[in-house]
Amino acid sequence: MVPIATNTGSSESLTNGENIPLGEYLFLRICQANPRLKSIFGIPGDFNLNLLEHLYTKSVAEDKKVRFINLCNELNASYTVDGYAKVIDGLAVLITTYGVGELSAINGVSGAFAEFAPVLHIVGTTSSKQMEFAESSSGGNVVNIHHLVQNKNPLCAPDHNVYKKLVNDVSMVQESLTKEGIEDGTNLEKIDKVLRVILVESRPGYLYIPSDIPDMMVPSSRLSEPLEKEAVVDQELLSTITKKILSKFYNSKRPAVLGDTLITRFGLQKEFEEFVAELPANFVRLFSTNMSRYLDETLPNFVGTYYGALTSNADVRADLELNTDFLITFGYMNVETNTGVYTQNYKYIDDYVEIHPDYILIDGEYIVTKNYKTGERKFSMGHLVQELWLTLDSSRFVHNSKTINNISFKSSPTKQHTKKSKSGRISQTKLVDYFNESLQENDILIVETCTFMFSVPDLHFPKGVSFYSQNFYGSIGYALPATLGASVAEYDLGTNRRIILVEGDGLAQMTVQELSTFLRYDIVPPKIFLINNEGYTVERVIKGPTRSYNDIQDCWQWTKLFEIFGDVNHEKHSSIILKTDSDLDEFSMSDDSKIQFIELSMDKLDSPERLHQIATRKFASPLTRA
Amino acid sequence: MVPIATNTGSSESLTNGENIPLGEYLFLRICQANPRLKSIFGIPGDFNLNLLEHLYTKSVAEDKKVRFINLCNELNASYTVDGYAKVIDGLAVLITTYGVGELSAINGVSGAFAEFAPVLHIVGTTSSKQMEFAESSSGGNVVNIHHLVQNKNPLCAPDHNVYKKLVNDVSMVQESLTKEGIEDGTNLEKIDKVLRVILVESRPGYLYIPSDIPDMMVPSSRLSEPLEKEAVVDQELLSTITKKILSKFYNSKRPAVLGDTLITRFGLQKEFEEFVAELPANFVRLFSTNMSRYLDETLPNFVGTYYGALTSNADVRADLELNTDFLITFGYMNVETNTGVYTQNYKYIDDYVEIHPDYILIDGEYIVTKNYKTGERKFSMGHLVQELWLTLDSSRFVHNSKTINNISFKSSPTKQHTKKSKSGRISQTKLVDYFNESLQENDILIVETCTFMFSVPDLHFPKGVSFYSQNFYGSIGYALPATLGASVAEYDLGTNRRIILVEGDGLAQMTVQELSTFLRYDIVPPKIFLINNEGYTVERVIKGPTRSYNDIQDCWQWTKLFEIFGDVNHEKHSSIILKTDSDLDEFSMSDDSKIQFIELSMDKLDSPERLHQIATRKFASPLTRA
Repeated sequence: MVPIATNTGSSESLTNGENIPLGEYLFLRICQANPRLKSIFGIPGDFNLNLLEHLYTKSVAEDKKVRFINLCNELNASYTVDGYAKVIDGLAVLITTYGVGELSAINGVSGAFAEFAPVLHIVGTTSSKQMEFAESSSGGNVVNIHHLVQNKNPLCAPDHNVYKKLVNDVSMVQESLTKEGIEDGTNLEKIDKVLRVILVESRPGYLYIPSDIPDMMVPSSRLSEPLEKEAVVDQELLSTITKKILSKFYNSKRPAVLGDTLITRFGLQKEFEEFVAELPANFVRLFSTNMSRYLDETLPNFVGTYYGALTSNADVRADLELNTDFLITFGYMNVETNTGVYTQNYKYIDDYVEIHPDYILIDGEYIVTKNYKTGERKFSMGHLVQELWLTLDSSRFVHNSKTINNISFKSSPTKQHTKKSKSGRISQTKLVDYFNESLQENDILIVETCTFMFSVPDLHFPKGVSFYSQNFYGSIGYALPATLGASVAEYDLGTNRRIILVEGDGLAQMTVQELSTFLRYDIVPPKIFLINNEGYTVERVIKGPTRSYNDIQDCWQWTKLFEIFGDVNHEKHSSIILKTDSDLDEFSMSDDSKIQFIELSMDKLDSPERLHQIATRKFASPLTRA
Repeated sequence: MVPIATNTGSSESLTNGENIPLGEYLFLRICQANPRLKSIFGIPGDFNLNLLEHLYTKSVAEDKKVRFINLCNELNASYTVDGYAKVIDGLAVLITTYGVGELSAINGVSGAFAEFAPVLHIVGTTSSKQMEFAESSSGGNVVNIHHLVQNKNPLCAPDHNVYKKLVNDVSMVQESLTKEGIEDGTNLEKIDKVLRVILVESRPGYLYIPSDIPDMMVPSSRLSEPLEKEAVVDQELLSTITKKILSKFYNSKRPAVLGDTLITRFGLQKEFEEFVAELPANFVRLFSTNMSRYLDETLPNFVGTYYGALTSNADVRADLELNTDFLITFGYMNVETNTGVYTQNYKYIDDYVEIHPDYILIDGEYIVTKNYKTGERKFSMGHLVQELWLTLDSSRFVHNSKTINNISFKSSPTKQHTKKSKSGRISQTKLVDYFNESLQENDILIVETCTFMFSVPDLHFPKGVSFYSQNFYGSIGYALPATLGASVAEYDLGTNRRIILVEGDGLAQMTVQELSTFLRYDIVPPKIFLINNEGYTVERVIKGPTRSYNDIQDCWQWTKLFEIFGDVNHEKHSSIILKTDSDLDEFSMSDDSKIQFIELSMDKLDSPERLHQIATRKFASPLTRA
């Protein structure tokens, strides 16, 4: 039940004790860190080619069936790998070349850090020989190798590790392999450390690999040792806290559980669902947040999505804020885009427990479980969820009885939300109705930081829907490559869930070339809805509704892009422009054999009311008890 | 003759002493730092909209005629602004939003650092109010604002300056404006400091501007004070060195001058040309380097492009290495892509002087002119070039006489270089002949880090040709947006030079959406030659000629891209696919009214011999004196 699934079996084709190239070793170790991983992403560059070669080794390519997915550029690649990591629910790998490649990817890695995606970024660097030479050079001796910025003093050697310094604040671990590390075995320790930190923190880490290292031989024997898991260090504290939480829970009169974002981001959705399934459904109410949305919304005790003053349904908000005496938040994600710009209001809730990977807030006190120097935790969030589940006795809720039903209502899709646009074009409100009607069980819904993202709280999800959006970090351009990552992941998993992307035009332009990669590899073909509203409508709401800085080249022939990128005969895609609400009503997402590209013609200034509230900071009034 | 041209006149519409918004002030000050600047580049984001608004102020938009050029994404924008800076030969400006925007641009800024482009990157950040709040917050109080990575300790406030730390090694100066700086005037000092450093170093600098600062009022009076120029601090040293250099020069028997890259990158081309024009043309020989190429190659004493063992013409190499007793290099760019992978060989040259912005190498000793702590120079490279020009007495060359002619030969275009490809497709060698025949005076030639870049030393340039390539930093994808920057710059300058881009398919995919921006603004329409050779041929030569990691989605309909991006009726572009050498012979670049897009069908493994030599490190043998 802890997030690290380690396949300890060594590769089928290896004899224990054999020496193998480090490159091969690394890929096999990665497959152990995430046995579901079947695709590795990247861009070739002269400093990573020696590493990429090892992807073609029998043990990796054939036995482990790992393929290399080559993206159009590193920025796009960083978004793609983030999408893959989230959907495959485990560690994912990006390979770039140092400097030019890794720096193009840093924004995507930073997003993976902010939004908790377990991404391993492997950077191919100058060779250990080149680094050694640099150490002893100065003056006329200084050698400046391509891709590497010079020392600010031109008579001093460049720092071959200069780029590594840049990623400290946007990743959890950074290690460089070395020639000495081949001799003394520290390279293999570093690899394990990086993999382990990425898995336990669910955030990015870096491995810097000099170009001559992947071919050097290392013992394969370590592959039969499991990757060390995150262990319970302080069982007593874990038990005490578990008991304390449950005691409060048992004695509460109108308890609620908020399933927040970090539960999924730490791979604990299944474990959390098991815990929730044990709770008396007539007594304990369940809520999601704007960014989480993984809880089954068809459960009898699911009330709705709580988003502070921006909550879609006022009754949901009131039910949580005013009619709850005890609330536990699991996997709290403290960011403005998850808390209704910090309008969440718990002051009428008598008792509040917040569970976070690094701490537990209980009785108004933060019990920090992580040592920030060593990175060690007394126990993980997974351990706590498991302990709560194991310890829970659902018969002990004092105020529950078969006659008491805490569930006074639950939110359901608002019917006829649509307000027709004056222009006759598809309206933002129509989109809400459309998706409320057409989302199906187990869909994957990916929404760009576009106007429609501000409507997502108005959607009701069928059972098993997964929702992804780079809601908080908000790097526009993210969603298109992330959808590619999701489409690759679903193919790799073999689960073939339906994937739907909702995207804006200004944002799609940022990373549009990656559409061509959708045609190149075996993937689950997604449905791509592109809102064509002639520019940055989200920014128009904030400032400059008609300013040219919010315009784009708005006459793109969007529906022809897949043709141009190679699918001339529409064998792999279909495309359509929908102009009116009735066009949308008549459209069917039913062709799962091809990518469906749907351009939605919408008004330049049509945007969800919620976006206006956020832009003007005019929120619904705080609720007060009568 | 120093690189800073300062227009000290304040804006026409301003009365001296008036208070104006900081945003307006900043743009007016920028116009003073580079009076040629008419375009500012960027992407809107909620944290920079308040600043962008001031671009529409009458004093900026109408009096200074500055326009905002909105790019498709920040990575592309960073390349575009680099191209603009180089062609406009002065400071250029990029505006992004913090985090998501600025980090997407960091690779391009790093390239501008490595290759000396004076780029000001202005980043719109959280407001000073938000920063102030963060300083006092912790625990449950911590506010995480979108785009800003969280503190690794979730109970501590995020660092609102976290991204500023990242750019220290890839830029020369970083300053943050503050609310206090409005009161005490330090904001205006910081603006001047950043502009000045960028100009004197010809490398990027950063201004971080909180979103509430651009609207705050500042006195416009400082606009009538000139931006401080780089002054001569040590006139005695300048004179001594000048005399020493000239004395050696006068007494040399077979002197040569190498015009290296940093002369143009520091805006000193005209000054250097004036100096060169004073030299006796029958006696002093002139050479270019692989990366410089600004010297007039039709001058009677221009010998050729020296590139160490990779020099195109063996006689040019021998003439410099074996038949020179005194060599001065002006603006030395010490990087492997400028020195024939460090195969340049001066051991037979009796006396060597190297002039660099930060030092002079003379008599084997480095005289460092820059104080790396204060940034101050005893004198600039511009001062030295000027002093040499002023002091030079061309009658004093002891060994020169009207009967002695040092110019034994000069390299000229090799005729019939073409080796026909077996497939019948256009060959790399044909391209060399084609451009040797069709380049015209004053052309701007931009070459991507593609196969053809390795052929550029085989080209002979007509007078006034400017050559740009991100040769050293080598971030593929650079050239297409950089060409946009060049096309905007030529329009702004009103000089309408012909702009030619040579580009590879794998590289063009990286930044291809920026083609749409060529259609959106008034520019000088370029000629874009795209080598379609189905992937990363440069990498194929290095490793994995047939490996899938070097493939791309190679069935793009390249010639339809401009149609798809909005020019449906071909009003602004024409496009053509050329398949054979004779197709190329018949093609004319003559339509300057439209963008010409030329797809060249070439073989997957066809590449210049020079690239193979570099990849295998098998260079021509070192020359030795008989």
